[in-house]
Amino acid sequence: MEEADIGLVGLGVMGENLALNIADNGYKVAVYNRTADKVDAFLANAGDLKSNVMGSGELATFISMLKRPRSVIIMVKAGDPVDQVIAELKPLLEEGDVIIDAGNANYHDTVRRFSELDGTGIGFLGIGVSGGEEGARHGPSIMVGGSEAQWENAEAVLTAISAKFNGEACCAYLGTGGAGHFVKTIHNGIEYADMQMIGEIYGIMRDGLGMSPEDCAKVFEEWNKGPLDSYLIEITGHVLNAKDEGTGKPLVDVILDAAGQKGTGRWSAIEALNLGVSATTIEGAVAARSISAMKDERVRGEEIYGAGVKGNATISLEALEKALLAGKIAAYAQGFAVMAKASEDNGWNLPLATIAKIWRAGCIIRSRFLDQISQAFDSGGAANLLTQPAFVDMMKDSNGALRAVVATCAINELPAPCLSSALAYFDAYRQARGTTNLTQGQRDFFGAHGFKRLDKDGDFHHTWPSLIGQ
Amino acid sequence: MEEADIGLVGLGVMGENLALNIADNGYKVAVYNRTADKVDAFLANAGDLKSNVMGSGELATFISMLKRPRSVIIMVKAGDPVDQVIAELKPLLEEGDVIIDAGNANYHDTVRRFSELDGTGIGFLGIGVSGGEEGARHGPSIMVGGSEAQWENAEAVLTAISAKFNGEACCAYLGTGGAGHFVKTIHNGIEYADMQMIGEIYGIMRDGLGMSPEDCAKVFEEWNKGPLDSYLIEITGHVLNAKDEGTGKPLVDVILDAAGQKGTGRWSAIEALNLGVSATTIEGAVAARSISAMKDERVRGEEIYGAGVKGNATISLEALEKALLAGKIAAYAQGFAVMAKASEDNGWNLPLATIAKIWRAGCIIRSRFLDQISQAFDSGGAANLLTQPAFVDMMKDSNGALRAVVATCAINELPAPCLSSALAYFDAYRQARGTTNLTQGQRDFFGAHGFKRLDKDGDFHHTWPSLIGQ
Repeated sequence: MEEADIGLVGLGVMGENLALNIADNGYKVAVYNRTADKVDAFLANAGDLKSNVMGSGELATFISMLKRPRSVIIMVKAGDPVDQVIAELKPLLEEGDVIIDAGNANYHDTVRRFSELDGTGIGFLGIGVSGGEEGARHGPSIMVGGSEAQWENAEAVLTAISAKFNGEACCAYLGTGGAGHFVKTIHNGIEYADMQMIGEIYGIMRDGLGMSPEDCAKVFEEWNKGPLDSYLIEITGHVLNAKDEGTGKPLVDVILDAAGQKGTGRWSAIEALNLGVSATTIEGAVAARSISAMKDERVRGEEIYGAGVKGNATISLEALEKALLAGKIAAYAQGFAVMAKASEDNGWNLPLATIAKIWRAGCIIRSRFLDQISQAFDSGGAANLLTQPAFVDMMKDSNGALRAVVATCAINELPAPCLSSALAYFDAYRQARGTTNLTQGQRDFFGAHGFKRLDKDGDFHHTWPSLIGQ
Repeated sequence: MEEADIGLVGLGVMGENLALNIADNGYKVAVYNRTADKVDAFLANAGDLKSNVMGSGELATFISMLKRPRSVIIMVKAGDPVDQVIAELKPLLEEGDVIIDAGNANYHDTVRRFSELDGTGIGFLGIGVSGGEEGARHGPSIMVGGSEAQWENAEAVLTAISAKFNGEACCAYLGTGGAGHFVKTIHNGIEYADMQMIGEIYGIMRDGLGMSPEDCAKVFEEWNKGPLDSYLIEITGHVLNAKDEGTGKPLVDVILDAAGQKGTGRWSAIEALNLGVSATTIEGAVAARSISAMKDERVRGEEIYGAGVKGNATISLEALEKALLAGKIAAYAQGFAVMAKASEDNGWNLPLATIAKIWRAGCIIRSRFLDQISQAFDSGGAANLLTQPAFVDMMKDSNGALRAVVATCAINELPAPCLSSALAYFDAYRQARGTTNLTQGQRDFFGAHGFKRLDKDGDFHHTWPSLIGQ
């Protein structure tokens, strides 16, 4: 007894894979599941890893298998089930132990759970785990937030099982309370924007240039050798190349164009709104998925307005590549700006360079680009990527292509919600004199909200004419 | 005693004006304020209306002045103060009375207050009042939600004081619970989008065409005689024409370009996200205000990237007018779609035609356009404005101009977050075959989320290659 380095509650696919990953890295893991059969099956199928796994369908027995101070990972459905497991674990744990929620929690729940355990001596960590099922098994990116004092209980194990980028572990403690799950939320928001922009570029190739899925795939494969080199570009090539077995058609041509969403993109956009930070690329991506789900309305819309011009776009593949890079810079600039503001408001002191580092491998948005971001933040400078010298150079080189692509989409009736939001963000961000002087004049007119002036300090009002009786 | 038709708590500017409006319409109003001096001052200054106003700085006395069943309007700062007033009123009221919150409440608070009073026999109405201080005094638009049974206590008074459009009152009961404050929230979201699009058009005139504020004013005055005829276009002309007394310069040229926001635009965007409805024009407007407030960062951004091309745009004023109309149609389509979904989810049965009707006068977004919307919804059809025949014709006629304007902005480095989001929404809405088939392929690749097919029902997965070890 008391020989397992870490415990894990919840043997769904993600939980199983995390446990196998731990065992594979030479650590002993004890598992527990409410349905005891799953524990037996897991132990029976552990194969070569048998000597590193143990477990029980009885919670107290499971806890008795853990070395002290204990670390218990919870990997169950987000929401109430997490609270139920915490309630059951609490009486069995003692001061210095730590509970680790590795699910996709809303960070507000993590903040609440952290507070609820505060003062009990039992630590609480909310960790974002990205990389899907394969990541969980072979090395995810792990974003840790919560009780810093108890982080050392689990640090060695979680660092060992995480993805590695040039030997560096993609696992780090980022801040107290809900910092880890917050960062995971924004990761997913950026992922939405990244995927949507790839989709828009695919749309231009398909509908604007009349390219086949196979031809599109070749382009993405080529791009994966350049500055866009990333997991998402790589799998885009695979997806576009895939054949449907039954029909022999390209798989993308038989898949329904109605995207699902599990909520983290939406959370990300809502947090940005609450923080007052512009995240229009994430909002555009979330909205694009919502519209995509309204297939019947879209079919009706096309019947009413016509299908639009097809195959008439004149834009080079090189411009598309550069536009995607420029759009990506704007989207990541927004995501990191959201994190910088959240860090300030929550007192997290989020290490932006470290966040970029632990996203370089394991997670869905992993890329060469993130290595450049980590280097940029490592060398100091402001929190907005658009002002980091390396990205300034890239943006100067690529924003012209983004302009050409947005204009092409506008003229050729190709929807580009995310790319056009990226461009509008860039142009607003670099516009010293904007247009909300008019907005402030209007607000003073109808609501006496007042305005500030360019030439002197203070709050001012203008005496406006009354429109009553006109 | 017991002679006032209605009571009003809270003598801020809005409260005072509402009370005077009531008295002006021949109803007797009793007022109460925590600082009793304000009550005395109000009564002393009532002038011609003296015979219709009464009041007390003592709450029980104030209540004793009201006819039964009683109606008490609360017009205090949104948030805790409203709850405090309700708590003080409750013991003094009886079954059949109604409390009416006329402040800018978050509708979630209204839902809660409605539930808390449910079962006490005291009704609760949350009413959105739009039109600013002048509206409150001379006729606001009033959006009513809450206890339908007690609405009749206050209906005559609130209908009388509301704005009139061709004799029709801009006041209506819209649904139970928080329906009134929800509709007011979306009204404000649409207002944000409307104002931002006007700002973007002004930016094109100023920076793209090199026009002076006076010249811009002339154009808006002209447009106010056409399809854009609206309060916001009218005041835009006044704002652009206004001179700063001290410097003699056009006022807009001395106003700081940093917009404030009081939260309702943000609430509106968050509700749309929670409902899963695309409201990218509102999101774009909220974000534009956030970016505008970062003046120092924008100045730095321009230093880094340069000011962009000025005065080189080639676009006609006619195209700008049509583009603004097309953008407006898309923004209102999004706003009404949000209300339609909220109505469905909350069981409100929101009358969309009536909402458009009561927005035709009194409120900030009042316009000829809203009369067309009310006629469209009155004649049936789907909830999305883009499918209503009258708007289909307008959109067919104007979307080409919106395309030209968005392309012009992209090429000429003029930020157009809201107009470009409007166009992307339109193009996505009328695209029968979108691009999220690729998104679904990607999601199946990395997360085994599965996809649906075009050619048969069911949930499908593809067997993807493993990228591990590459």
